[in-house]
Amino acid sequence: MNPSQAAPGSQASLREANRLRVLEALRDQGAMTQVEIAGFTGLSPATVSNMVKELDTSGAVELEPSIRNGRRAVLVSLATGSTLIAGIAFGDRDVRVALGTSPRDIIGRQRMPLPADHAADEGMDRASRLLLDLVEKAGKTMADVRAVGVGIPAPVDSVSGQVGSESILPGWRGVAVAAEMQGRIQAPVAVDNTSNLAALGELRCGVLQGVQHGVYIKLSYGVGAGLILDGDLFRGAAGTAGEIGHLTIDENGPVCRCGNRGCLETYIGARGLLDALASSHGPLSLRDVITRALDGDPGCRRVLEDAGRHLGVAVAGLVNLLNPEVIVLGGQLSRVGSIILSPMRASLERCAIPSAAASVVLRESELEMDADVVGALVSAAALLPAGAGVLATAVSIS
Amino acid sequence: MNPSQAAPGSQASLREANRLRVLEALRDQGAMTQVEIAGFTGLSPATVSNMVKELDTSGAVELEPSIRNGRRAVLVSLATGSTLIAGIAFGDRDVRVALGTSPRDIIGRQRMPLPADHAADEGMDRASRLLLDLVEKAGKTMADVRAVGVGIPAPVDSVSGQVGSESILPGWRGVAVAAEMQGRIQAPVAVDNTSNLAALGELRCGVLQGVQHGVYIKLSYGVGAGLILDGDLFRGAAGTAGEIGHLTIDENGPVCRCGNRGCLETYIGARGLLDALASSHGPLSLRDVITRALDGDPGCRRVLEDAGRHLGVAVAGLVNLLNPEVIVLGGQLSRVGSIILSPMRASLERCAIPSAAASVVLRESELEMDADVVGALVSAAALLPAGAGVLATAVSIS
Repeated sequence: MNPSQAAPGSQASLREANRLRVLEALRDQGAMTQVEIAGFTGLSPATVSNMVKELDTSGAVELEPSIRNGRRAVLVSLATGSTLIAGIAFGDRDVRVALGTSPRDIIGRQRMPLPADHAADEGMDRASRLLLDLVEKAGKTMADVRAVGVGIPAPVDSVSGQVGSESILPGWRGVAVAAEMQGRIQAPVAVDNTSNLAALGELRCGVLQGVQHGVYIKLSYGVGAGLILDGDLFRGAAGTAGEIGHLTIDENGPVCRCGNRGCLETYIGARGLLDALASSHGPLSLRDVITRALDGDPGCRRVLEDAGRHLGVAVAGLVNLLNPEVIVLGGQLSRVGSIILSPMRASLERCAIPSAAASVVLRESELEMDADVVGALVSAAALLPAGAGVLATAVSIS
Repeated sequence: MNPSQAAPGSQASLREANRLRVLEALRDQGAMTQVEIAGFTGLSPATVSNMVKELDTSGAVELEPSIRNGRRAVLVSLATGSTLIAGIAFGDRDVRVALGTSPRDIIGRQRMPLPADHAADEGMDRASRLLLDLVEKAGKTMADVRAVGVGIPAPVDSVSGQVGSESILPGWRGVAVAAEMQGRIQAPVAVDNTSNLAALGELRCGVLQGVQHGVYIKLSYGVGAGLILDGDLFRGAAGTAGEIGHLTIDENGPVCRCGNRGCLETYIGARGLLDALASSHGPLSLRDVITRALDGDPGCRRVLEDAGRHLGVAVAGLVNLLNPEVIVLGGQLSRVGSIILSPMRASLERCAIPSAAASVVLRESELEMDADVVGALVSAAALLPAGAGVLATAVSIS
């Protein structure tokens, strides 16, 4: 995980950093005992022991009985298989790519900014180059990449394989994303909405593990949701379920990029937030607003609080309709924490059926900014033939 | 089906009437051949043949080889089993009770008005008396009733077994409905929201058969929805999923009985509709408004059209969130047909994600006013021990 993207010191980012340290040590030093790994990485023997158990379970390392210093010992080495999977998550302003041997075993990742309203071709070209770069750094070839999951920040019509709106992501209109990516990568490609993938990531590897009915809400440039119903990702009849961003909050409200008026996104999406601050604060980026709000800037706090209130109204509708156990807030805007969360919670309690509001718990994302790429890896793994061994390979993160 | 409740001449009500005619003929005349049934009922031989096949499949009749007029013939008679199930559907202004041998084989039904804001005790007493009456007319005793499904027009918290709101159905606040009914009826009781049950009825016996993702919307005094997701009724974490009536349409709108402002129900529920017409039309009942609108009264049409427009906004939200294949409109208000449907469809197309709007089909209810009692029978049948024979018994409808 890119430390600038993860809440520093969170349990998820620590575990992830430790996992990478162990994998990198094994790549650089070759087979080692657990004592040697602890010595080399500076991790405690208990941490190394837990991590090696996890990596062994997921097939990322191999254990072999041996003798060291005249005593019996178990040597840990990177597993030698070569099946790789990739996850690609397009944002409104960037693309992130992860290469792994399983959704839990990411061996490399990279991020690159994208211009606003970029064309699909440009985004897909950059993503393919990032992936090739990661593969080469891992000492592998693209032929080792057996499946790719791709997320885009727009509804994806599962029948046509295209963005399900003419105007939400204009550069991607009419593009058959899976076929286009497959042409570039020469591996099977699954395409889904990034909020769906983030929900899937949290379900399989994060805070939604074991949850029957949960909702992941991604707050970023836009706002979307992924629904976990009956313990699995719910995509609806044509793959576009979860479009909370285009719920109507006010029939006569501002015009949204989707063509409707008063969608939730016009109140909590980046365009609305930045427009509201333009005359008082001048041009800001979404990151600026987040930083200033956390630093106590009253105007930035206020627009986020108002956005939280509107979000709570929409979430109340979602709670009334679906009666979930857990709602997870993710995406970069969720980093402002209680500035959005408190007014959201107040609106939720005011607007939802009391028993439904009482039965829902609000949780923070565990995978944080990685939720969608992890979900993309999950969807890639689902494309592999049953029983295909997904084994660890060498790591190269510079 | 009470003919006054069913759209006259609809296929569902015709089939139902024919089924009753055949069952009543067998009760009154004893065993008959299919030719004799046709002669006695005036139905065509083909209709009788289809109906007998259906009744035989569901176990309501028994077929026995015999000789009539020197020729081989098959005698049809009522099956002699005695396991009965009952469905009870409370409305805001009435209660309907059905007695059957299966959800498809209703052998008697009755309806009784209830005062607005009645106390739960009064409603449950009346329902129990109606059920006892039906059982006695069928020549049976309450001991033959093995399970009862009960629907109430409010969210039901599956954990507490109570209405999930302090104010939606005030007369029922804090009442443990299943336990109370069980005390009166001495049989296992399942309690659910009537919209959920109507969806379940349409799923098992009506227009939602075979549908994976569908929504039943009940338009009556209030408005609610039942969700069919992945081919089954979706109740959410605590049983209250589907509460479309309390989606916020306008944060600053009229105060709703649930305590929130601007809920869909304040725009399309009976109170809002009747209030809007009070100054121009004087006091009307919901039935009056429906009748007058169908007769062309401009004011009544206008409030229903406006309600349809608001309904479409809420339904667009539901379509964005769940991306269903089918939406079914039921409940007495749905009888105005295109007066509500046309503006609703226009709002839906304007407000929903285009691909989600394009993939949903609007359908009319097939079970009509019976959808909820049929669903109650389905939920009752689910309480029976697996393998319990549900057989037909004598019919007595006066």
